[in-house]
Parts: sequence; structure tokens; C-alpha cells
Amino acid sequence: MPAERISVAVFGAAGYAGSLAARLLHHHPNFDLRWVTARSDIGRRLDDVYPHHRVPMILEEADVDRHGAVDAAIVAYPHGASAALVAQLRNRGAKVVDLSADFRLRELATYEEWYGAHPEPHLIDHAVYGLPELYREQIAGAELVANPGCYPTATILALAPLARAGLIADVVVDAKSGVSGAGRAATDKTHFVTVDENVNAYGVPRHRHTPEIEQELAVLGADTRITFTPHLLPLDQGELVSCYVTLGDPGIATEELEALYREAYGHEPFIELVREPAGVRAVRETNFCRISLHRDDRTGRAIVFGAIDNLWKGTASQAVQNLNLMFGLPEGTGIAP
Amino acid sequence: MPAERISVAVFGAAGYAGSLAARLLHHHPNFDLRWVTARSDIGRRLDDVYPHHRVPMILEEADVDRHGAVDAAIVAYPHGASAALVAQLRNRGAKVVDLSADFRLRELATYEEWYGAHPEPHLIDHAVYGLPELYREQIAGAELVANPGCYPTATILALAPLARAGLIADVVVDAKSGVSGAGRAATDKTHFVTVDENVNAYGVPRHRHTPEIEQELAVLGADTRITFTPHLLPLDQGELVSCYVTLGDPGIATEELEALYREAYGHEPFIELVREPAGVRAVRETNFCRISLHRDDRTGRAIVFGAIDNLWKGTASQAVQNLNLMFGLPEGTGIAP
Amino acid sequence: MPAERISVAVFGAAGYAGSLAARLLHHHPNFDLRWVTARSDIGRRLDDVYPHHRVPMILEEADVDRHGAVDAAIVAYPHGASAALVAQLRNRGAKVVDLSADFRLRELATYEEWYGAHPEPHLIDHAVYGLPELYREQIAGAELVANPGCYPTATILALAPLARAGLIADVVVDAKSGVSGAGRAATDKTHFVTVDENVNAYGVPRHRHTPEIEQELAVLGADTRITFTPHLLPLDQGELVSCYVTLGDPGIATEELEALYREAYGHEPFIELVREPAGVRAVRETNFCRISLHRDDRTGRAIVFGAIDNLWKGTASQAVQNLNLMFGLPEGTGIAP
Amino acid sequence: MPAERISVAVFGAAGYAGSLAARLLHHHPNFDLRWVTARSDIGRRLDDVYPHHRVPMILEEADVDRHGAVDAAIVAYPHGASAALVAQLRNRGAKVVDLSADFRLRELATYEEWYGAHPEPHLIDHAVYGLPELYREQIAGAELVANPGCYPTATILALAPLARAGLIADVVVDAKSGVSGAGRAATDKTHFVTVDENVNAYGVPRHRHTPEIEQELAVLGADTRITFTPHLLPLDQGELVSCYVTLGDPGIATEELEALYREAYGHEPFIELVREPAGVRAVRETNFCRISLHRDDRTGRAIVFGAIDNLWKGTASQAVQNLNLMFGLPEGTGIAP
Repeated sequence: MPAERISVAVFGAAGYAGSLAARLLHHHPNFDLRWVTARSDIGRRLDDVYPHHRVPMILEEADVDRHGAVDAAIVAYPHGASAALVAQLRNRGAKVVDLSADFRLRELATYEEWYGAHPEPHLIDHAVYGLPELYREQIAGAELVANPGCYPTATILALAPLARAGLIADVVVDAKSGVSGAGRAATDKTHFVTVDENVNAYGVPRHRHTPEIEQELAVLGADTRITFTPHLLPLDQGELVSCYVTLGDPGIATEELEALYREAYGHEPFIELVREPAGVRAVRETNFCRISLHRDDRTGRAIVFGAIDNLWKGTASQAVQNLNLMFGLPEGTGIAP
Repeated sequence: MPAERISVAVFGAAGYAGSLAARLLHHHPNFDLRWVTARSDIGRRLDDVYPHHRVPMILEEADVDRHGAVDAAIVAYPHGASAALVAQLRNRGAKVVDLSADFRLRELATYEEWYGAHPEPHLIDHAVYGLPELYREQIAGAELVANPGCYPTATILALAPLARAGLIADVVVDAKSGVSGAGRAATDKTHFVTVDENVNAYGVPRHRHTPEIEQELAVLGADTRITFTPHLLPLDQGELVSCYVTLGDPGIATEELEALYREAYGHEPFIELVREPAGVRAVRETNFCRISLHRDDRTGRAIVFGAIDNLWKGTASQAVQNLNLMFGLPEGTGIAP
Repeated sequence: MPAERISVAVFGAAGYAGSLAARLLHHHPNFDLRWVTARSDIGRRLDDVYPHHRVPMILEEADVDRHGAVDAAIVAYPHGASAALVAQLRNRGAKVVDLSADFRLRELATYEEWYGAHPEPHLIDHAVYGLPELYREQIAGAELVANPGCYPTATILALAPLARAGLIADVVVDAKSGVSGAGRAATDKTHFVTVDENVNAYGVPRHRHTPEIEQELAVLGADTRITFTPHLLPLDQGELVSCYVTLGDPGIATEELEALYREAYGHEPFIELVREPAGVRAVRETNFCRISLHRDDRTGRAIVFGAIDNLWKGTASQAVQNLNLMFGLPEGTGIAP
Repeated sequence: MPAERISVAVFGAAGYAGSLAARLLHHHPNFDLRWVTARSDIGRRLDDVYPHHRVPMILEEADVDRHGAVDAAIVAYPHGASAALVAQLRNRGAKVVDLSADFRLRELATYEEWYGAHPEPHLIDHAVYGLPELYREQIAGAELVANPGCYPTATILALAPLARAGLIADVVVDAKSGVSGAGRAATDKTHFVTVDENVNAYGVPRHRHTPEIEQELAVLGADTRITFTPHLLPLDQGELVSCYVTLGDPGIATEELEALYREAYGHEPFIELVREPAGVRAVRETNFCRISLHRDDRTGRAIVFGAIDNLWKGTASQAVQNLNLMFGLPEGTGIAP
């Protein structure tokens, strides 16, 4: 543990993810949260906008010269808007965890297909994909970490053991998310009356998280196109992915599949393997990903459920997990129960 | 329309489905609700147990001699307990709509595999499967109708046009239901604190609605084993099935698929074909099934969403729809807006 | 019942109240809904904006020359914006039910204190306060009805028997409302994440419904200043007022109080007197007001609960109840179960 | 901080309050949670019953000889059942925090009026009422602490400054609670479908928390009978009390009232004074009580809102706060953010 505390700033702290990152860093024993900046609510206290986070700091308009003189930064900007700020912060020497999609996709062409022109393509190769369970060592040495999307976090963790074993012939992912995943913007879609007593799919049939999931499954060994369909649910935080896997080897014993998960995750501090279908309430406001594996004997399919809190393991606490690794701190500092 | 009103009784009116059936019949212009019986809450007023249904009748202990002397009956008993009562009512000449699973499966062996010994197997061949959109004519001539399960109702309606066209090579059904689907029994699983801010699967990997769905899809032409997985959601009424279909002809044009749905359902009074992903709020407290068809161009899959109110089209209002048909009444009497 | 159907238009049908009024009139046997106008969503189908209302009409920009040539109109405009349109419609001879506060207050000075300058003060004396349980006869002869606010509806109905008997020495009203009461505008306050798992008061200590309640209680005989405090709850429709009454005669027998309620409401078609504390679920999507009276023997206070659906009896179905009266139709037509 | 960790047991850890107390103590740096006992679910793992608490211990049947040999105990038994166990634990020398009502009321007669015969009346005089903001010093020296009820905690904290100043002439308390306050028992009243989209009062007009509130207000100087009415809301954790105070000195300046609250609570670590009406979401899963004071100028009344998490400050975290005080630890250890 370093003798001095590490200075850190959160850019984009007026949103759900950025404000939670600020809370976690404000109470973190090793980080010194110096600045919180925002693109709205400038001049308001963060604990006025988000009372439950209890961060007694003023939201300032971002000024890279002032706010960028820190050891570390979390950038919680929208896709496309993030890359330029990340580049400026890297130029000033700050280590950065970027919560946007700007540096998650390794192939520029894929990024451009789904998001348009990339503002800082030269940085793509310097970014490490920030899923500690897969890239712990690379993250430890990284200066720019692309924090995974919430859906990819749950889905990749749920499927990695099968992907690595080459067992995924085909997969359907039915994802279910609480409303905080849609962000703080007040719209018809996030109005209480629209969401309450409702459930429906959105982003059908092309959701932007699809290429990110396919990219990582391919790295692991599953070169397949997935069907990924998110649904909006009447709850605030929580995300469940229900993964229906057609196995490459339909006759494989269930015990062998279970062994793959135990080997992959038996020692992971933030993965919980459970027997009952994983539910989101058990991971609410935690950095845990809860996974259960089941077998449909009638069809041979494997069914894997992965549950996370979309704002925590899906975004902000995973960002702190990455910062911990980047600065040589115990991985769970400030985010473990 | 008959000159006199048709006498009717609801057996098992203390549950969610039976009490709603009682409400719909109590306000129905052609039926005269004579009796409501129950297996609990005997002697209580139904509008005390379910104030919002406003049925000012006393729940009585079932006495087939007294209560069975009616033109029609709805039986809302649990699986296994229903068949014996149905047989007694048929002996007295009453036309019966049975809400249980006891007469839904055409093959005795299948029933026994999923539910155990059948109390009245001789009646199975006399029962008509009560999905009006598929069996309207048979229902009109039936004296015993097996009302479909809520999940099968939504799933079969969502998939029928593809099944009939022989296009279903494989299908994954991810189903999402409100808590009323779990019934009135107060348990850990239906406790508010368990359900609130939660979502998880249940009945994995063998849910009893699976053979019912497979049976009907097979009749239509899709002889496949399905993966069917229900989830419990924090809402009271409403059910969404998300159906992921691997098409037998992956290259078929989307317009052709859409045409199949228009042909099947263009004139159906209780099916609504929509472009946006179907949601449950739009069908709450109605007999409608709302269906949307989408195409995942990247995988070739068809994605079909079907939304119903599990207590209405999924159970009680569909039972009234069946009774209307059985007695030659306009199909939507008492259940259309 | 008139031989021909009564032509009617709804102005402001893009909001929660106006769209529900349109639904009730669209399905009403005696009214012919000719037009639905709006101040947003012009050109969209109403059943696209509000699928569950199933009104297959296009929202048009209001044009009084075209849309005002009707027998009756419901105006669902904001306070202040409503009066001018009401005046134009009255000039064209249409009978009007106005959902805004513009004609609820009898004293111009009171209106101006709470809402600012009144656009059409000359019409105030021609308006009848549209609470049928108090002003049935006047409404029947009225050409302009000021539909009560949702909170006043529940509160006045809950307190009227005590007010009329001169028994209210002092009263605290703690009101609780679902989010639809805040309207369709998407704001921080109506965002799902703000409301979910929350409850707090708003409009403290001056809510605009206060003078409306005081005015009507004074007419009945209770000339007192009330404390009225509304709270926002995580539900969509439903409103409960908890009224804590210090009685002018603290020693009065509870049976006498109960008799006052039975006399006042025993024959009212839309008032339900109950023994258990009234809850909102029992009146959801109905025109009923459910009232329970209790006595705190330790303090002598009477506690009265009044529950309504804020969009139905609190607004739109009460407007139809008023229209029924204004056109000599049975009061419950189109709104009774 | 003591060199060795303090041994502690939780009796009744299968309920909502006991299990949360176990969680807080399991992760507490100074306590060593040795045993968790229960009256149901014997032999099950606590992290199976309550996954989100992550306490990997087995629920055992209580055996005072084995489990009572600890430095401290929290007893989470029902009223009436608690006193006997408390007495046994005191005999063995354990310091006890009792979550039941058994030792909250100082007058035996009052206890007997509301709860029936007291099993261990001789202990009443040895118990300290465990509201740290009022009795910090007495708690520090106590061996038996009666943890306050959740409603009394919020109400007494909201009213104490006014009571101490002799300003409370009369008070109405309208309380609103999430469902966890009703406990883990699965009943009609806690069924999701009963609570969802609903709100209604319960325990009218005699709720057992009334004498506890009156007792403490009297000690502070307000000798008045209160009207206290709790309501059940569709949320899991959270409790709001809306207190309507008729002031003894109606003309007192609002600034003077505000000064009373600042003096009382300006340095309290777990009281937050706020200007906007206090809401429960801001205190969810915390030990904070959030209070706002308002003035109704039209009636002279003071309106005070107090918000807590009923399971945390209302029960379990306040119990840990008391244990911290009893063992000389910093008051917020293990429960501050």
C-alpha cells in the first residue's frame, strides 16, 4: 500500500455511473478524490444531486489543465465524447479508466460500423479491456483501461468457461436490466409510469453491446455470432443475462461443464457460483457477479445465468477494481463487503 | 343471443384466476353467475377477499349436487384435483371450461410423465384445447374445454404462423411473468421483499408448460423440442414471451414472415400485431395478445415477442372467450373493451 | 337516452388525463368522439402514444372552428392555458367540462393569489363545481363544469359528512399519490430511479389544492384552515388521503359519526363505505371513492381515509360522470363496472 | 480499540432484523460473530437464506449454555418471547441489546396494557432505552439495552427538539413503511400482489408503538397523547414519518425552530438536517436519520419529516451503534459509510 494517497478525479460525475464512482473513491482508503466534474449541474453539490452517495463536493465544469493534474482519472462520458478527453488526460500522464465504449473494440472498423468515426484511433492499441477476471495482469500494467459495458460484463463472465473450452456452437442471450442502465436522462422511456408494471425488449435486433461480447468470446475461442436482446424491467439496479448455449459437444456430461466453471472461478474474489438460478437482488450494490449453470437434458442445451448490479460490477465498482489493479492495491479495496 | 341467461358457476373462486372469472361472468350480459365455491375462505364474501372485483356473493363449499345444476361451469382447481370435479359436472350435463392442466395434454403418457396418474383418463379425448385462435370451431361444439396455460397461450400464439409454415428448426423461449402467475399462496417466493428489485429464473430446466407448448406446435407442424425458461418479475399481472427462432429456411425474406402473421392474425379480434417490441403494460387487464416479429439479420433468426395479461388472456378472460363460443355468443362479449 | 349520439371532442388528449377521457368517450354508448387534439405529438395516433387506451384516432392541432362544432368538450389543458379555450368553446355553444383549476375557485382573489391573473374572470360565476356527490342537480343544468382536482375529490368526499354536521374543528390531511398525478412530463422527479423505493412529501407547505378544499369545506359548514401535505409514492395510479380530524364535539359517539356517513353516502353509486382502512388497489381503474371512518379513542380524533384512482374518479372518469349528468344520461354510463 | 475482538452471538438470525445484525457484526472489525441461532431454518446456511448478507454460518437452534458464553448478544425475538432469553443471557454475564419491545416501556402497567403479562419484570429497571442521540452516556454504561422500535426511532428523533423546548401542544404522526417492517412471515398482507400498486393504513387506531413514542416525548417534556397511524407502501426498506405539530407557541419564528434542530443535531454523526422534504431513498441501507423541518404559515403548524431505513437505523444498525457504545468503540464503527 503506497505511503501517500493517490490523487484521482472523476469526469462526468453528474450521471449515475460517474457519481457512484465518485462515492466509491471518496470513501476509498487509498485514493484522494480531488475533483468531480460534470457536463450538467455545474456548481451544485454532488450530495445534493445524489444524497445517498454522500460526497460533499462541488460539480465543476471540466478543465483539463486544472483537473487533469492527477494520478488517475475515471471518465464517465458518452460514447464518442469520451475519447478526446481521454487523450488529453493521457497526455498529462494520468492513468485513465474510461467507462465509455470508445476503447473497448479492438478493430477500428468494428467501432466505426457501430458508433461512427473514432476521434482518437491511435489510442485503441494502448487500451486494455478492463475485465479483471480475464485480463488481470494486463490491467495491472495498463495506463488506459476500457471498462466493459454492463451487458458484456455479465455475458462474458457467464460464458467464458464454455468459450474457452470451445463448447459454444451457438448462443442466445436474453438480457434483463433495471432502469438505471438507461441513464439519468428523463424521457418517455424512463418515466415511472412507462416502466412500472411493464416489461419489453428494446434495441431489437441490433444492440451496440453485441460486437463487444462477440469480440471477447472470439478471443476466448468462440467465434460465433450471438443473438443478444435486452429488456427493460421495473427495478432500478440489477441486470440478469440468461444465456442459452447450443453446445459443440451435446453429449458432454454436466459434471464436466460444472468443473469448467469451478476451475475458472473457484478462486475469483468477485464471482459466486450458485446452484439455484442466479438472481439480481443477491448482488445489488455489490461488485459480485453471481453465476449458475444448468442443463436442459431434453435439448442438450446449457443454460447459464449471470447476475450483476449494472452500476456496480457493470460499471463503477468494476472501474475501481481496475484502478486498484493499476496501482498495485489489493483488488477488492473499497468495494468488497 | 339466447332469450334467457345462461346459468353458470365458478368452482375455486378464492384464487386469482377463479375470482377474476367470477367477476367477468358477474358483469356479463348473457351469463347468470349462480354460485361461487372455494376450498378456502368459505363463508366470506368474494368482494371482501377481492374488493376490486366487486362480486357481492358468498364463497361456498363446493356441493356438486347443488352447485352443479347449471348450464356451464368454470373449474379453477389445481392440477390433479380438477379432473374428478370436471367428471362430476359433465355427468350432470354442465358444459365445463377447466383451467387446470388436467385435460390439456392429448397423450396420457405425457400427462403421467409430468403430472402423475390421471384421475379421469376417459375424458381426455372429449376435451378440446381452448385456444380460440386455433380451435374456434371445435370449441363451439365442445362440452369440455381445457383452457390453455398462460405461458402456452402466449408462446403458441407467438409461434403459430411460423410453425404452420414449417419454418421452426429450433426455438428458445425466454418467458417473463408477474407474480400473480404464481398464485395466491403466500410463500417466501411471493413475499414482496423477495420479489421487489429482483428477477430470476425458476422451474429450470423442466417447466410443466413445456409439453403443452410442444404438443400444439407439433400439431401445427413444428416437431421440435423447445427450451422454455420462465422468470419471475416485480410486477403483478403481465407475461412476456421472447421467442428466438432458428428458421428452417434462414434466407427467407422478412416480408414473407410478416405476411404469415398478417394472414394468420389480420382478422383476429384479440391479436394485435405491432412493430415495436410488444410490452405487457399495453395488454394489462385485457384479453389481447400483442405480438411483434423482428429479424436478426446477423444470425438470420426470427425474434417474436408475445405479451398477454396472464390472468386475463392467459386464464380467466380466455375462459370466458371459450364459454362465449360454446354458447354461440359473440366471442368478445363481456371481455372486449 | 337521446336518439342520436352526442358529438364530443377532447382537447389536450396527449396527456394522461385527456387520453383517458378520450378512451372512456370512445367506448361510451352515447357519445361520439369526433376529435382528439393535442399540444404535442400532433399527427401521431393516440393508440400509438397510449396503446392500452385503444383509441384509433389521430392527435390534431386544436382548431376551435373545426373542433369546437360539437355538443360537448373536455378540456385537459394546464391551469391558466385552459380558460381561453373554454371561453371560445362556450361561445360556439359547446357544453364544457374543464379539467384545469381555472374555474374551480369561486373567488377571483383566491385564484389570483395561487395562480396569477385569470384570463376569463367573467366565466367564473357560470361554472359549477363538478363533484356530483355534492352538486348533482347544479351539474345537470350546467353548461360549464369545473372538474375538481384529484386531491380535493378524495378529501372533500372523505370529510363532507363531518363538515356538514359542523364537526370539524381542525384537520390535517396527509395525501399520498401515484406518479401519474405528476403528469406525463419526463423530469428528474418522475424518472423511475427517483421514485422507485422512495417516498417523500412535495409542495410543502403550500400546495395549490389547499384553497379548493377549504372553499368546499366552507360551503359545507367547516370554516377552517387545513394542513394539506401531498407525498409521492412508487405506484402509477392511486391516491389516498388520510384525514385526521379534531372534532368540534370530542365526546360524540362513534356510531353517530358512522350514521352521518351512511346517510350521506348510503345511496351514492360511486362511494364505497368500508370498515378496514381504505386502500387504493381496490379502486384502481374505477370511478369509485372508497372511504373508511375510524376513531382514535385515546385522542378523540376521527380518522377518515379516502381512496380513489387519481386519473379516474380524480379526473377523467369523473369528467364523464359530469358529462352524463349534463346530458341527462344515467350517471354511470360508460364508467361503471 | 480493544486488543482482542469481542465475542458476540445473534439470537433470532433467521428474520430480517437478526440476519442484518449478523451481517453487520460479521464484517465488523471489533466483533467476532461466534453464533447465529434461529427458531426456523435450523441447519441452513445464513448465506443461503439471505444471500446478499454473505454470512457463511449455519443457523443453529438456540442453546443458551453454548451460545450464551459470549461478551455480547443481540436478541431478535418477538415481543414476549424475548424477555426470558434476555434474562438467561444476563445471568451468564453477556451484555445484551434486545430488539423486541420487552424492555422499552418503563412502566410495567403500560407494557401489560399493550402486550400482556411481562415475563421478567425485574429487569425493566436495568434496561436503557437505546436511542444514542438521547441516551448516549447511559447506553455506554448499560448491560441491557432496549433497542427502539423503528417508528419510535424516526418519530422521537424528528420531534425531540420541539419536545425538549416544550413546544408540542398536539401532534399527528402519519407514518409510511416499506414491507420489510412487517417481517419475513409470508401472509396475505405481505404477498407481492397485495402490496404492489397499493397503499393503505393498518393498525388503526391503536398501534403498539404509540406508548413508546409518548413515553419518550414525555421524558423530553411533551406530555401529550399523539395520533400515530402507520401505512404500508410498495417498497422493501424505508420508513418516513410525517409529523404535524400544533405548536404551544404558534407565533414562534421559524428561525427559532430551525435553531433548535441545529443545536440538537448539528454534531450528531447519524442525523442529517436537510431543507427539502426528507425522503427514504437517501437513507436506504444506512444508519442515517434524515430530518427536515417546515412551517405551514397558514395554520402556524410545524411539519417535520423523519426518514430512516427501518431495518438499519430502525433496527439492526442502531443495535450495532448501541453495541459500539457499550464496548467503548467509536460509535460509527462498522455502520458508517
